[in-house]
Amino acid sequence: MADVLAKMTSGFPEWLPAAKRQEKRILDIVAKVYESYGFTPIETAAVEKVKNLATTGDVSKEIFGIHRLAGEGQDIKAEFGLHFDLTLPMARYTADNFAKLQFPFKRYQIQKVWRGERPQKGRYREFYQADIDIIGDGILPLHYEAEVVQVIYDIFSQINIGDFTIKINNRKLLEGLYRQQGVDDMNATLIIVDKIDKIGKDEVVRLLIESGLSEAQAVFCAELAGKKFSISQALEFIKDLDTSDELLAAAQNELETIFSNLSHLPDGAVIFDLSIARGLDYYTGSVYECVIDGLESYGSVCSGGRYDNLAEKFSKKTLPGVGLSIGISRLLYVLFETERLTALAPTPVQTYVVLFDESQRPKANAMAAEMRAAGINVEVAPSVKKFGKQIQFAEKRGAQFIVIPEEDRTDQMKNLLTGDQEDFSIEKMGTFLNA
Amino acid sequence: MADVLAKMTSGFPEWLPAAKRQEKRILDIVAKVYESYGFTPIETAAVEKVKNLATTGDVSKEIFGIHRLAGEGQDIKAEFGLHFDLTLPMARYTADNFAKLQFPFKRYQIQKVWRGERPQKGRYREFYQADIDIIGDGILPLHYEAEVVQVIYDIFSQINIGDFTIKINNRKLLEGLYRQQGVDDMNATLIIVDKIDKIGKDEVVRLLIESGLSEAQAVFCAELAGKKFSISQALEFIKDLDTSDELLAAAQNELETIFSNLSHLPDGAVIFDLSIARGLDYYTGSVYECVIDGLESYGSVCSGGRYDNLAEKFSKKTLPGVGLSIGISRLLYVLFETERLTALAPTPVQTYVVLFDESQRPKANAMAAEMRAAGINVEVAPSVKKFGKQIQFAEKRGAQFIVIPEEDRTDQMKNLLTGDQEDFSIEKMGTFLNA
Repeated sequence: MADVLAKMTSGFPEWLPAAKRQEKRILDIVAKVYESYGFTPIETAAVEKVKNLATTGDVSKEIFGIHRLAGEGQDIKAEFGLHFDLTLPMARYTADNFAKLQFPFKRYQIQKVWRGERPQKGRYREFYQADIDIIGDGILPLHYEAEVVQVIYDIFSQINIGDFTIKINNRKLLEGLYRQQGVDDMNATLIIVDKIDKIGKDEVVRLLIESGLSEAQAVFCAELAGKKFSISQALEFIKDLDTSDELLAAAQNELETIFSNLSHLPDGAVIFDLSIARGLDYYTGSVYECVIDGLESYGSVCSGGRYDNLAEKFSKKTLPGVGLSIGISRLLYVLFETERLTALAPTPVQTYVVLFDESQRPKANAMAAEMRAAGINVEVAPSVKKFGKQIQFAEKRGAQFIVIPEEDRTDQMKNLLTGDQEDFSIEKMGTFLNA
Repeated sequence: MADVLAKMTSGFPEWLPAAKRQEKRILDIVAKVYESYGFTPIETAAVEKVKNLATTGDVSKEIFGIHRLAGEGQDIKAEFGLHFDLTLPMARYTADNFAKLQFPFKRYQIQKVWRGERPQKGRYREFYQADIDIIGDGILPLHYEAEVVQVIYDIFSQINIGDFTIKINNRKLLEGLYRQQGVDDMNATLIIVDKIDKIGKDEVVRLLIESGLSEAQAVFCAELAGKKFSISQALEFIKDLDTSDELLAAAQNELETIFSNLSHLPDGAVIFDLSIARGLDYYTGSVYECVIDGLESYGSVCSGGRYDNLAEKFSKKTLPGVGLSIGISRLLYVLFETERLTALAPTPVQTYVVLFDESQRPKANAMAAEMRAAGINVEVAPSVKKFGKQIQFAEKRGAQFIVIPEEDRTDQMKNLLTGDQEDFSIEKMGTFLNA
């Protein structure tokens, strides 16, 4: 892995500045694309009430409670814990502020989350997630299930890290087809089938039989999970579904809406992948996962789905939604680890102003102020040094230009990439930097 | 206070979307200005080791430790706690990664911090700080003490919230002048003098005498603290200092460098205010506080100073620095409370595409994609409704334009602010929105 991680303590990662700048670049793209679709930012507190967080034994093991140090020595029973995702906080916030929000409520949320897991490679105790969800008041039109995919497509295109695949499936479809075969224990089956990319078809069949399915049922489920279709193939496949089955009729309608709304995307960007099940039990329709092509073994970097009522714990209203979450820290880790992405320069400095004498500093500061007003990031020499040393320093900072204030002739600027030296011109500098 | 706070739990504030958007606008300005001076972003973990955080009894009362919920019931002694500022994490990070950083290390850091205080008006348990520091390896030139003030000046000018005053003083100056009067207990004296704006001169004199000073000494300190000078007056004042005293000679040099580097700023933006002392004992030279004019009673929204060696706990290197911290959450609270700032529209939507029939959605989506590529934030109608209802909805979202896809004639757009309707043109729309 490139040298981007700072010294780390027990699973709480920190980036060196050059990598943090890359993370910021990606977070800025994510926020910009989210806003371009009208998603509005919210930020919830880092903590939630423990009674809301700790709903299942499995999850509660991973929760960090907080307590005042002054209270140590007494029996501690945390009232608040750090949130482990942004979905539960969003559901609570939406319910709490229902009367003051506009529906459909299209929100995005980019925050750290915390999990008390044992730290391991690429799995941290603190990491960034970047979520979008669209929440309806009572109803939520199906076209939003395509919109969230389009948003993710735009983001990964703009981050510019090579090809990626957004895999789509539908829980109602799996459930309907399984039921037709007499398979009833949906969750147990889905959990096994979900592993097909990791353990292979034969092992899935074996495990399914072990779980109580007949051989025919097991083979059917495994073969179904092996199917992957392009959008046009998907539209063909769903035509043949038996729509006398209520679940399959609904699945057909949902998949038809999604895929027809996404048919303009390039081949392979979106596929219909019948192995995608998503473990979380709140998904009720479409489910999504996104992987980077060639880096499938690192798992998905983005996932989500449709839910019919997420906030039932917090509200009597029915609040259906659809959302996706990008695992930003995980994505960065994978991209740095595989060198798909390199760190940026260690500072945002674009132009460095050379100083030959401290008496030039007021003039240098004035020139820097003019450049900053034109949107250029400028550092003035920390102190007077030999010219060669200053150029070296400017290059280390990542500057593309140096500016040389002159006494008796026109101020000069030098492009460190091309080596060209010419009369100082903010306009020319700006044109080059923005190109 | 305007209706901007979401439902709040025990001192953990959350904004409604319109206020969060205003906070994001301000955070974006802050980051942009920081970068324009070449400051590079870092982000540290939310937690630090408790043994590093809890250095004084006073502070440790406010620290939130974290523990795994699974460990409750046993004796809890937290290894990690949530950071209560960004200064200690910066010092630890700089020491940890010393060999991989470039000095002077100009870093900025915008993160939440946590304090386990009793919640009260405008004082929260979780809030944003936005810090800059410049850290030298062994030495740090004095001109940086002016640069950080210039940065803050640029930020508050761009946030555009009316006049503000950056108050500057110098601890060496106070110490030197006090010593000349035979006052020795510097900290006790500074803590009392620091309150002069709140409790008045007479009360300060009384408290100083109570603390052991003679009446003459007390009056001297109180009168000194009452002095406020413009930059030109400051430059005059420091000329007369007795530079045979080492502390006063140093103070003269430091103040001369700062004020002469800031003399181009408008009258009143920066003042020399001898009441500013800053309670924190790590400041060793310049100290700063910034208040919004007319809102002085809310206290400072930004403060900082010079320190000679902040990281001594973490490193054998001498790391002098100068820095400033903007209390973003506090600033927002004060500005909303006094209605100096209003919330923005509840969403970033600039243009809303009307739909008269679901069959138009693919066309509407394509038009939206084109506008997004031109940098415009677009929402397509959630569902088909009457035209009037759709306009109302677009206005509620905060849109400035609606676009009407047509079948038999040129697509139309309508400016909701001016009421003008004309042929759809992304270029014209962009020009209006960016004006």
